[in-house]
Amino acid sequence: MSEIVLHNYFRSSTSYRVRIALAMKGVDYKYVAHHLRHGEHRGENYLSVNPQGLVPALVWNDETVVTQSLAIMEFLNEMVPEPPLLPGNPHGRARVRMLSQMIACEIHPVNNLRVLNSLRSRFGADDEAVAEWFRHWVDETFRPMEQMLTSAPETGTFCHGEQPGMADICLVAQVANNARFNVDMSPYPTIRRIHEACMALPAFTEAAPKNQPDAE
Amino acid sequence: MSEIVLHNYFRSSTSYRVRIALAMKGVDYKYVAHHLRHGEHRGENYLSVNPQGLVPALVWNDETVVTQSLAIMEFLNEMVPEPPLLPGNPHGRARVRMLSQMIACEIHPVNNLRVLNSLRSRFGADDEAVAEWFRHWVDETFRPMEQMLTSAPETGTFCHGEQPGMADICLVAQVANNARFNVDMSPYPTIRRIHEACMALPAFTEAAPKNQPDAE
Repeated sequence: MSEIVLHNYFRSSTSYRVRIALAMKGVDYKYVAHHLRHGEHRGENYLSVNPQGLVPALVWNDETVVTQSLAIMEFLNEMVPEPPLLPGNPHGRARVRMLSQMIACEIHPVNNLRVLNSLRSRFGADDEAVAEWFRHWVDETFRPMEQMLTSAPETGTFCHGEQPGMADICLVAQVANNARFNVDMSPYPTIRRIHEACMALPAFTEAAPKNQPDAE
Repeated sequence: MSEIVLHNYFRSSTSYRVRIALAMKGVDYKYVAHHLRHGEHRGENYLSVNPQGLVPALVWNDETVVTQSLAIMEFLNEMVPEPPLLPGNPHGRARVRMLSQMIACEIHPVNNLRVLNSLRSRFGADDEAVAEWFRHWVDETFRPMEQMLTSAPETGTFCHGEQPGMADICLVAQVANNARFNVDMSPYPTIRRIHEACMALPAFTEAAPKNQPDAE
């Protein structure tokens, strides 16, 4: 069995998700940093691991490569079942996957580095226009998400009951990203409360961008 | 038990995904159309079902509401296991989820109607700039995906072996969208071959946009 390797970047919020999941599961891994702003992820060595040239990519101890942070978390949850990242029943799993994907399929994809760079190069967007874009898409999803979390009886200390899981992981990584664009979090008190509950847990703080070896 | 309801729109590719999955599973449902271009999904009645005001939303026969097409497909796959939308082992599931998410988290979110409209209103993008943007993000993912599909021994008639599943569903819905923006499919022969194999199956053709009651 080989060493488990995580190809990632300290500031990438999708990398952050996977780091939290690995920490929660207590899985040791080798941290390989790819500096996105220097284009290191586009080098030939890395493209042979992940032809997309994106982080994160997890190389499991049997050399299986899994990319896409939600797929990585599902895989990890199947290989190392405890503590679970998903609830024990189909309805709960559907809810947690739905909340996770609201962030992972609607906020993050339109706000990641390569898309923001493309707004600059294609449409001449300046820093303020980029920040406006970022905040707009956060609000488009955080507003209904706040409402869903506040009104649902399934919401507890965390997004779903009293144990943190996949939705909390996505939430925390998004809130970390928001801080870089000065998103006003006051309209989202339940999201803030859940974020604070998560940040009281070692797995979430150890995995935070500022605590990684490549942090600037 | 109530009737199963799918809130959707014929042209929405995420709705198309869910329709294929429902057809594969042989699940009968009531089709409720929301015309996205007329803003019908933003009406109060629908916001009480899905506070995000997005389609698709599946209302199960116990009145559980699930949104987010991948979460809906996972839920459906748990409630109606046959035929499976995911392989029977964790490595296979990881691969199919990864391929699905390459489309669902990277191509579709940056190319959906509300994002393209935002490029027009914020940056004055014209039809050609919007089409260019669309094609760029398709190629950014389809190029490595083609390579991954062509080189992997797991690829068969479909994305993963000889049975269609979640990745094929995402692939077909994306290819249907591509046609609206004249995406040149010639660089992706394996994706085209898989698309053709899927379109020979009734579940995929019955669910196609042009065969829906709200098709124009």
